[in-house]
Amino acid sequence: MDEAALQRLLEDVRSGAVHPDDAVAELRRLPFADLGFARVDHHRSLRQGMPEAVYGPGKAPEHVAAIVTELLTAGSGPVVLTRADETQVAAARRANPDGRVQGTTVVWRPAAPRPERVVLCTAGTADLPVADECAAVLGAHGVEPIRLTDAGVAGVHRLLADVEVLDGADVVIVVAGMEGALASVVGGLTAAPVIAVPTSVGYGAGLQGVTALLAMLASCAAGLTVVGIDNGYGAACAALRMLK
Amino acid sequence: MDEAALQRLLEDVRSGAVHPDDAVAELRRLPFADLGFARVDHHRSLRQGMPEAVYGPGKAPEHVAAIVTELLTAGSGPVVLTRADETQVAAARRANPDGRVQGTTVVWRPAAPRPERVVLCTAGTADLPVADECAAVLGAHGVEPIRLTDAGVAGVHRLLADVEVLDGADVVIVVAGMEGALASVVGGLTAAPVIAVPTSVGYGAGLQGVTALLAMLASCAAGLTVVGIDNGYGAACAALRMLK
Amino acid sequence: MDEAALQRLLEDVRSGAVHPDDAVAELRRLPFADLGFARVDHHRSLRQGMPEAVYGPGKAPEHVAAIVTELLTAGSGPVVLTRADETQVAAARRANPDGRVQGTTVVWRPAAPRPERVVLCTAGTADLPVADECAAVLGAHGVEPIRLTDAGVAGVHRLLADVEVLDGADVVIVVAGMEGALASVVGGLTAAPVIAVPTSVGYGAGLQGVTALLAMLASCAAGLTVVGIDNGYGAACAALRMLK
Amino acid sequence: MDEAALQRLLEDVRSGAVHPDDAVAELRRLPFADLGFARVDHHRSLRQGMPEAVYGPGKAPEHVAAIVTELLTAGSGPVVLTRADETQVAAARRANPDGRVQGTTVVWRPAAPRPERVVLCTAGTADLPVADECAAVLGAHGVEPIRLTDAGVAGVHRLLADVEVLDGADVVIVVAGMEGALASVVGGLTAAPVIAVPTSVGYGAGLQGVTALLAMLASCAAGLTVVGIDNGYGAACAALRMLK
Amino acid sequence: MDEAALQRLLEDVRSGAVHPDDAVAELRRLPFADLGFARVDHHRSLRQGMPEAVYGPGKAPEHVAAIVTELLTAGSGPVVLTRADETQVAAARRANPDGRVQGTTVVWRPAAPRPERVVLCTAGTADLPVADECAAVLGAHGVEPIRLTDAGVAGVHRLLADVEVLDGADVVIVVAGMEGALASVVGGLTAAPVIAVPTSVGYGAGLQGVTALLAMLASCAAGLTVVGIDNGYGAACAALRMLK
Amino acid sequence: MDEAALQRLLEDVRSGAVHPDDAVAELRRLPFADLGFARVDHHRSLRQGMPEAVYGPGKAPEHVAAIVTELLTAGSGPVVLTRADETQVAAARRANPDGRVQGTTVVWRPAAPRPERVVLCTAGTADLPVADECAAVLGAHGVEPIRLTDAGVAGVHRLLADVEVLDGADVVIVVAGMEGALASVVGGLTAAPVIAVPTSVGYGAGLQGVTALLAMLASCAAGLTVVGIDNGYGAACAALRMLK
Amino acid sequence: MDEAALQRLLEDVRSGAVHPDDAVAELRRLPFADLGFARVDHHRSLRQGMPEAVYGPGKAPEHVAAIVTELLTAGSGPVVLTRADETQVAAARRANPDGRVQGTTVVWRPAAPRPERVVLCTAGTADLPVADECAAVLGAHGVEPIRLTDAGVAGVHRLLADVEVLDGADVVIVVAGMEGALASVVGGLTAAPVIAVPTSVGYGAGLQGVTALLAMLASCAAGLTVVGIDNGYGAACAALRMLK
Amino acid sequence: MDEAALQRLLEDVRSGAVHPDDAVAELRRLPFADLGFARVDHHRSLRQGMPEAVYGPGKAPEHVAAIVTELLTAGSGPVVLTRADETQVAAARRANPDGRVQGTTVVWRPAAPRPERVVLCTAGTADLPVADECAAVLGAHGVEPIRLTDAGVAGVHRLLADVEVLDGADVVIVVAGMEGALASVVGGLTAAPVIAVPTSVGYGAGLQGVTALLAMLASCAAGLTVVGIDNGYGAACAALRMLK
Repeated sequence: MDEAALQRLLEDVRSGAVHPDDAVAELRRLPFADLGFARVDHHRSLRQGMPEAVYGPGKAPEHVAAIVTELLTAGSGPVVLTRADETQVAAARRANPDGRVQGTTVVWRPAAPRPERVVLCTAGTADLPVADECAAVLGAHGVEPIRLTDAGVAGVHRLLADVEVLDGADVVIVVAGMEGALASVVGGLTAAPVIAVPTSVGYGAGLQGVTALLAMLASCAAGLTVVGIDNGYGAACAALRMLK
Repeated sequence: MDEAALQRLLEDVRSGAVHPDDAVAELRRLPFADLGFARVDHHRSLRQGMPEAVYGPGKAPEHVAAIVTELLTAGSGPVVLTRADETQVAAARRANPDGRVQGTTVVWRPAAPRPERVVLCTAGTADLPVADECAAVLGAHGVEPIRLTDAGVAGVHRLLADVEVLDGADVVIVVAGMEGALASVVGGLTAAPVIAVPTSVGYGAGLQGVTALLAMLASCAAGLTVVGIDNGYGAACAALRMLK
Repeated sequence: MDEAALQRLLEDVRSGAVHPDDAVAELRRLPFADLGFARVDHHRSLRQGMPEAVYGPGKAPEHVAAIVTELLTAGSGPVVLTRADETQVAAARRANPDGRVQGTTVVWRPAAPRPERVVLCTAGTADLPVADECAAVLGAHGVEPIRLTDAGVAGVHRLLADVEVLDGADVVIVVAGMEGALASVVGGLTAAPVIAVPTSVGYGAGLQGVTALLAMLASCAAGLTVVGIDNGYGAACAALRMLK
Repeated sequence: MDEAALQRLLEDVRSGAVHPDDAVAELRRLPFADLGFARVDHHRSLRQGMPEAVYGPGKAPEHVAAIVTELLTAGSGPVVLTRADETQVAAARRANPDGRVQGTTVVWRPAAPRPERVVLCTAGTADLPVADECAAVLGAHGVEPIRLTDAGVAGVHRLLADVEVLDGADVVIVVAGMEGALASVVGGLTAAPVIAVPTSVGYGAGLQGVTALLAMLASCAAGLTVVGIDNGYGAACAALRMLK
Repeated sequence: MDEAALQRLLEDVRSGAVHPDDAVAELRRLPFADLGFARVDHHRSLRQGMPEAVYGPGKAPEHVAAIVTELLTAGSGPVVLTRADETQVAAARRANPDGRVQGTTVVWRPAAPRPERVVLCTAGTADLPVADECAAVLGAHGVEPIRLTDAGVAGVHRLLADVEVLDGADVVIVVAGMEGALASVVGGLTAAPVIAVPTSVGYGAGLQGVTALLAMLASCAAGLTVVGIDNGYGAACAALRMLK
Repeated sequence: MDEAALQRLLEDVRSGAVHPDDAVAELRRLPFADLGFARVDHHRSLRQGMPEAVYGPGKAPEHVAAIVTELLTAGSGPVVLTRADETQVAAARRANPDGRVQGTTVVWRPAAPRPERVVLCTAGTADLPVADECAAVLGAHGVEPIRLTDAGVAGVHRLLADVEVLDGADVVIVVAGMEGALASVVGGLTAAPVIAVPTSVGYGAGLQGVTALLAMLASCAAGLTVVGIDNGYGAACAALRMLK
Repeated sequence: MDEAALQRLLEDVRSGAVHPDDAVAELRRLPFADLGFARVDHHRSLRQGMPEAVYGPGKAPEHVAAIVTELLTAGSGPVVLTRADETQVAAARRANPDGRVQGTTVVWRPAAPRPERVVLCTAGTADLPVADECAAVLGAHGVEPIRLTDAGVAGVHRLLADVEVLDGADVVIVVAGMEGALASVVGGLTAAPVIAVPTSVGYGAGLQGVTALLAMLASCAAGLTVVGIDNGYGAACAALRMLK
Repeated sequence: MDEAALQRLLEDVRSGAVHPDDAVAELRRLPFADLGFARVDHHRSLRQGMPEAVYGPGKAPEHVAAIVTELLTAGSGPVVLTRADETQVAAARRANPDGRVQGTTVVWRPAAPRPERVVLCTAGTADLPVADECAAVLGAHGVEPIRLTDAGVAGVHRLLADVEVLDGADVVIVVAGMEGALASVVGGLTAAPVIAVPTSVGYGAGLQGVTALLAMLASCAAGLTVVGIDNGYGAACAALRMLK
């Protein structure tokens, strides 16, 4: 139940369209619905501006399906399933067929398009899966990001060639593994908020993304913020908070 | 030289108030002024929306003073000196007396007050120096943050008592050491962007802030972003990018 | 051989029901029985208040079966097999058919129900396997824990809705991965002993449970204690020591 | 305000000794008193069974004194100041002269003696400062721990000589640095709850207490629980929760 | 070629049984034989008192076989193949059929039995594979170790029951995972050299053997020495150096 | 397009052999060709002295093939595919059949042989795959390295036997795992530039190459430089930069 | 009380020179003397072949003096005080004037000279303080080590020039910081037991001795053993165990 | 004794100017001179192309002076003292007055100027001390580096403004702390060998230079090589090896 739905309900009570007893019954579902194996948080969209996404790993396929169904039934905004494996995707879509699959993400009831400009910048082709998760979550909320791919700093002219794309951005998301230097360079080129996403791309001294994470946190470009390794979902949520 | 100053200059050229040769001379300073021991970056406010702050540690007092002077002479926005020791503060203010000292930060030519609401939330009294640096930098740009102090999660009712303060925020900054759990709880209570600042407060398993840093990055609250340990300056810059 | 069995034996010697030579023979098994590949510790229940559990990984199935048999034959309390794979479970139950399987735990000869209240609190659904191991071991000793599931701090109201459950607890066990903040919040809400169990749930900056572990150790809630990562068994044993 | 004081107040209202308005005024102080620089949590003894201790590091001496005064004025249980430096101790005792100093801990209004047996076991003489902090906090709540000093496992007979002391314990606290093996051996000798406190004693591979911390968490003795490095205060609080 | 073989060769030259040219040809093989893909070090037994063992991982089966053959042909002491997989074992034994297989170790031409007493002490059954590798290498050199199994410190009486075995030892090897405390306790009970072998047994805070490694290095028992994690082979070589 | 090709093009324009419009069309491809899924950097050989190698992991086989084709079509120097799996190799060679496969590396259009002496020194047979990748990349640019294999420092005479090979070297590359000491010894024996490549060979305390990496960085031999763990490709590139 | 003293006492009882009651009184001191602040372990020389050394750090000077006095009064072997600061040395020698000071080590009642050959090998001059502590402890037990100084592997010929010194050694101790490669090279040159002592010498990637520690543990030279960082005392004790 | 001096000596023997006995006496000094407390390595310039530098920390001032004197007396090339404190500098220059002091480095008998172009690039003013050490060592060997200061990537145009300086370089040295991204960007702009020097500049997530170190090792720019943290001396030696 998002804010609009709540206001509609209260209007309906005031206008007499809904009986107070029925409104109470519906509101009693709040703040969460206890499914036994999980407690679905319907207030989240009120509190955090976005519905509870369902994180796949470690959940039984039938539980995934049930949580998605609950969110679709009781709420009114977009529903997102992330990092789902094939059996989870199948179970969730069997119960709710109109989910759109993008990689390991599934989106139901996507929001209407929004006009803000989010630039999603990746250092190498191996960073694309993380960027794709980010783009799918943004898309669920109506934001179609502008992609800047393969912009690693070892060929800094490739980035500079597109520098005007950065200028008009409301939010910039930089996805990079290895040494993560792209975030520093981008941070120096734009006045927009920059969200840096370290990826586990690379080997040896990349330490499964820890090097990029540390480098982004220690960046000489002022005002970068960072999310966890490979956390494309978190970066999208952070961007949505900023777009508000 | 910030964007407004640049536009004024170009207007003056168009109107004839400034001769093109003089405009060129002034613009030639761009993109940076080479002082020999440092290259002062006057384009930064154009590119990043804020002037280059002077980071004190490791710089000779006379160099600090000269860089501040250069920034005040050639630019038109606020100038900030951070993490300065006493001799650096003295040297910089001898050369430019009207700097306002707040802890180890000095601000010259602060911007006019702005109306945005930034909530600055601290877990314990020992986190205050980091929060103070953050507040001083925000203040230099005209933003007076609303403070929520001593809101550690071990007494979560103290935080809940002020939850309506969070509701209206444009940006929330959470400064916390030890296990940094305050960021997760705050992130769950607001739809605003949340910038988490881990501090090196605590001992033993706090690992000089690494524990809080990791915990904030691994937070179960979606859409948190994180800056480096004790980096109150960076959090302020990130907030300013978001307000922009 | 637990304390009750030992007292019975000595009573039998005093009453003449058991000949001293036979008592000596039985006691000579103490303090342990050497099976060649393992030395089964029958004194543990005397010393530590619980029998030696059999930890599955790395043991041959026939050895697992033999150790369980020895513990059932020579002792009189509950016997627990943990982290057993399928072939170990099969071998142990072939030799001793009445073992109750719960996940990867098997319990023989469970103790009679006890009245103490242990609250077992989990942050997310992915933490359930660790909590289940903990519950199985508690159940072997007659303690049926009260479960609080899906109580992550990003929706702190879900936890507060059940706060009265915490009030009457003798011991509270908190199982949480990611940033482990649930332990701090729970620790601030109850005067009972709190045992925090970090789990390896999460990815990236969760560092396979190290982040939760460090966060729990650095908690701002006074008097938390912590066990090893994913150590549901250890948490149960700690709770049993406290209930004593 | 602890539970007893609250009950007394309510009794006084019922008996007419206190006017409801006055009771309300007093209760309104709850749940915390905002001193401007700190918010003193008077509900903590209700929620956690012990008053908020004042942690010295990073606080101004006059703030320390004011918080202690507030706690003594508005509450009725013991008040503890920990890790205080000399100027903090002096300021706090100038305002409240009857504080008892033990090392870097100060205790006001200690509770009446309690009969429970807490055994406080240290591996080497260098672990004593941590044990002393623990003992001072226990003493503030009326528990005088039984000390077992210099019981390192390299001379395990020294420990075995006192094994009967362990047998009657309600709680055992083990304070050890270096490899922390004492916790494992003690954990194998007693059925009581064992709280292990790693210390930063040792050099080289001791890694400032991290080795002892890890070793205690990985202990082969089932049911140990662990607190943070050098955290004698936390161990005392954990013991008090268990004694409850 | 070990020292005895070298002396025999030189005696044969002196007595005329071997022509100097032939001796030169044989000695020219020294200090190593270049097989193209590897350089077999025949001087090692002269320099280090033991022949070059063949470490399996990463070597092609036919290379393993060829190196073993070269060592058997050109030398005269025991030959050991360690950490071999099945195809390596098969290839090596097809070429040299009389190798004795013990776990993942194969021994050819074992030395005659030696009388020294090496005690090989393990903490748990999961440590046995590392101890078995150690025992196989010792056995190749004629030393049959005395085994003390399942002697973990959580039941320290099991160890004390066999303390006299330790007394007569020339060398004691302690193999332990988890917190590795067994090494400290054994080190306090014997005057013999103690070689501690940390194992990767355990989970969570055991950190794949790093915890045991650090604990052994930080041990309070003076004069312990440590080898690498799971390095049963290295411990055997160290013992052989000490027995000389 | 490497420097020679660029100069030829410009000569052709000057001589009239190529029309300026055609030259512009070709140059417009610069600085990179955007294939949609990747941006191929044709200027790299101008800037860095070597063409962009294609790093296999994480790329779709058809993308690998397309990038290789683009590099072969638009440039004129050697093209290298590294860390390719079997399907990537097959796809790339189906499109461009004359690639030479060496392990997981494929080379097209190798450069003519060059006379410089690069010595490639390995500590053990398990280091060979990393050295082979290095040799394949060197060979693509016409440099056939001189191999010194199995030169571990535990038999330092094997290295000293070939010391004169080191003397004439233009560059020495040392590939070693475990403790990486070979780099220090080699660095002390030659005045040539020494590039140290740590490998993930070894177990336990080798920490997947981190130990060798740290040891090489901390080497007592002055003037060593180091590349990332297992980075044979990077070492080859570094050597090529030095040979220029 | 060492083994010889114990035998003398028992002989005196048998011969009648000492009355059994007096022997009992003396033996009752065993196994340790409780000084209140410390428990002095007189059995250690029986169990471990060397008296308890007094480790200075963290002990009050008067306690140091009292422990030394107790050890001198009740025992009969050498007494060693290590890592003592000036006031500890002064206090201990005021009470027991004939202690010989060597750096931060003091030795009383040194043993008679012994003939075994211990070679003490250091990589650089900065490693000398650790080697000196080792030599002082060896000297207390009658062993005068042979020193090989400044034998770093960057100039391996300096080591090879003295290789015959290594040949006759009973034990070799290698003290090295930075990358610790000296241990590997020495381990390859001798058949004697080699004890490696990593030191905290070096900076940057030396990580305060961790790099040398890891490198020594991962050494390719078979049969090295390692003690903790900077632990010259431990290395001496290990050598004494081996000489036994 | 460098190569030229050795050749002169041998010419003098051939011409009769030096008697063979005298030559032998002089050569006998080789390969090192044993000063008792140190063994000065005169062959190093023969083997490594540069004389042994004297590393100050941990050496007694009189030892520093004596080693410098020995190197000046017996050799013929430049002599460098690094990381010297004031008393070491004073002692060394009292004995050998003509040493040139640059920061904590002292140079005697500098080599004649050489024409090669070494570019020394620093990210921030706080990196200058490390760069200065590097420049002093280069200068001792006749190489005057070209400095590019304050070229951090957050203002990448400052670097691009000087890109032509990079083009003509024989070697480029990049000195950077924080996230070390400058090395990647420079590595992408030049075909010259690039030596990256991480510095301990920065705080929090910079981890005393470890972040920059890891980032440089994981760089996406092919063919970077890296030296230890703050190791300006090592970078200079590496550059000299490359210039040869």
